[in-house]
Amino acid sequence: MFPNKKVQKLIGSKVHVEMKGDLHLLEGTLNSADDYMNLHLLDTVEIANGERLRSLGSVVLRGNNIILVIPLED
Amino acid sequence: MFPNKKVQKLIGSKVHVEMKGDLHLLEGTLNSADDYMNLHLLDTVEIANGERLRSLGSVVLRGNNIILVIPLED
Amino acid sequence: MFPNKKVQKLIGSKVHVEMKGDLHLLEGTLNSADDYMNLHLLDTVEIANGERLRSLGSVVLRGNNIILVIPLED
Amino acid sequence: MFPNKKVQKLIGSKVHVEMKGDLHLLEGTLNSADDYMNLHLLDTVEIANGERLRSLGSVVLRGNNIILVIPLED
Amino acid sequence: MFPNKKVQKLIGSKVHVEMKGDLHLLEGTLNSADDYMNLHLLDTVEIANGERLRSLGSVVLRGNNIILVIPLED
Amino acid sequence: MFPNKKVQKLIGSKVHVEMKGDLHLLEGTLNSADDYMNLHLLDTVEIANGERLRSLGSVVLRGNNIILVIPLED
Repeated sequence: MFPNKKVQKLIGSKVHVEMKGDLHLLEGTLNSADDYMNLHLLDTVEIANGERLRSLGSVVLRGNNIILVIPLED
Repeated sequence: MFPNKKVQKLIGSKVHVEMKGDLHLLEGTLNSADDYMNLHLLDTVEIANGERLRSLGSVVLRGNNIILVIPLED
Repeated sequence: MFPNKKVQKLIGSKVHVEMKGDLHLLEGTLNSADDYMNLHLLDTVEIANGERLRSLGSVVLRGNNIILVIPLED
Repeated sequence: MFPNKKVQKLIGSKVHVEMKGDLHLLEGTLNSADDYMNLHLLDTVEIANGERLRSLGSVVLRGNNIILVIPLED
Repeated sequence: MFPNKKVQKLIGSKVHVEMKGDLHLLEGTLNSADDYMNLHLLDTVEIANGERLRSLGSVVLRGNNIILVIPLED
Repeated sequence: MFPNKKVQKLIGSKVHVEMKGDLHLLEGTLNSADDYMNLHLLDTVEIANGERLRSLGSVVLRGNNIILVIPLED
């Protein structure tokens, strides 16, 4: 299964996403994902130093600025 | 609904956009959006430390430099 | 009107462009623009701390390194 | 063999991947790879200063943020 | 004339190119350019603080990492 | 000859490659190159301050993170 299909298979479950920049660790429920790895997360929380920093709710992430995606309930 | 369609559905409402770089938090009314997430905002305001820093008016944002988009009136 | 068409409609008028990097604020007359937001500016001036830093003349800007475009005579 | 095919030939073996950012050295077993060098690694470990820093498990990496890929068992 | 065609029209003449990163100011004779603004320069010189720092000779530049191109003999 | 063809013509000879980031100067024998300037180098060595820092062997480089390519035996 190609990496972008692996991500799409995670729709409905929780993911950890690392964005470009230093402090952009986000966790949320993956609501949709396209082939460019643009992601729409629900109930998104920003994480810093292992703690929940901010609640962001519904967030759309631009695929090219995503470093990595880790499934939290694989 | 794919992430870029989610963004297009926000046309006419207020959005929070985080651009690459440290201080690029913008809020404005989404006037148009294409499939690359290039955005045209109206009544745009730059935000820093939670406060309105500068009023920028009409602004076109290049999609690949957008980190994330958050609807403010979901 | 899509964001890149909004930019193309600005041809012939003055624009403010923010490029990647810290000090890349440019102002000039938009001479041409394509769908990737590659821009050709004339009479370009580099701005720092709100002042004209350098006169650059004719400058071609690579679209993917543009953060935002603001019309100066909307 | 083109570079992306060279990477695809490494599926099933261990790779070292350097991502954008300072501390993003990852090692894992390459599970899948597409033509954009999006990668899906299993048993992924983050490396810092030559030591295993964190165990990350299953990780999807966005191709455009990969600097380089080194086969560990060529 | 589109921006990338403007660059291609500069083939055979000297250009100033600013790349991503802090110190990547290059000047050379433009030998070829494609629609992605990938450039091949000859007799390339790296510039720092307005002075010639290093002679680099024949250099291929990746278009997406080019910030701007300025013709030196327009 | 377009810039990416110029790079492909260097297959079999030694090249100097500068990647994004501060210390990513690599030298190696170009084994393959595609139109996106993804490169596969053999006998790769990382260079810092003009000295050979690390021997990396076989390395695949992602094209969009390449700043420039310089032929070492033109």
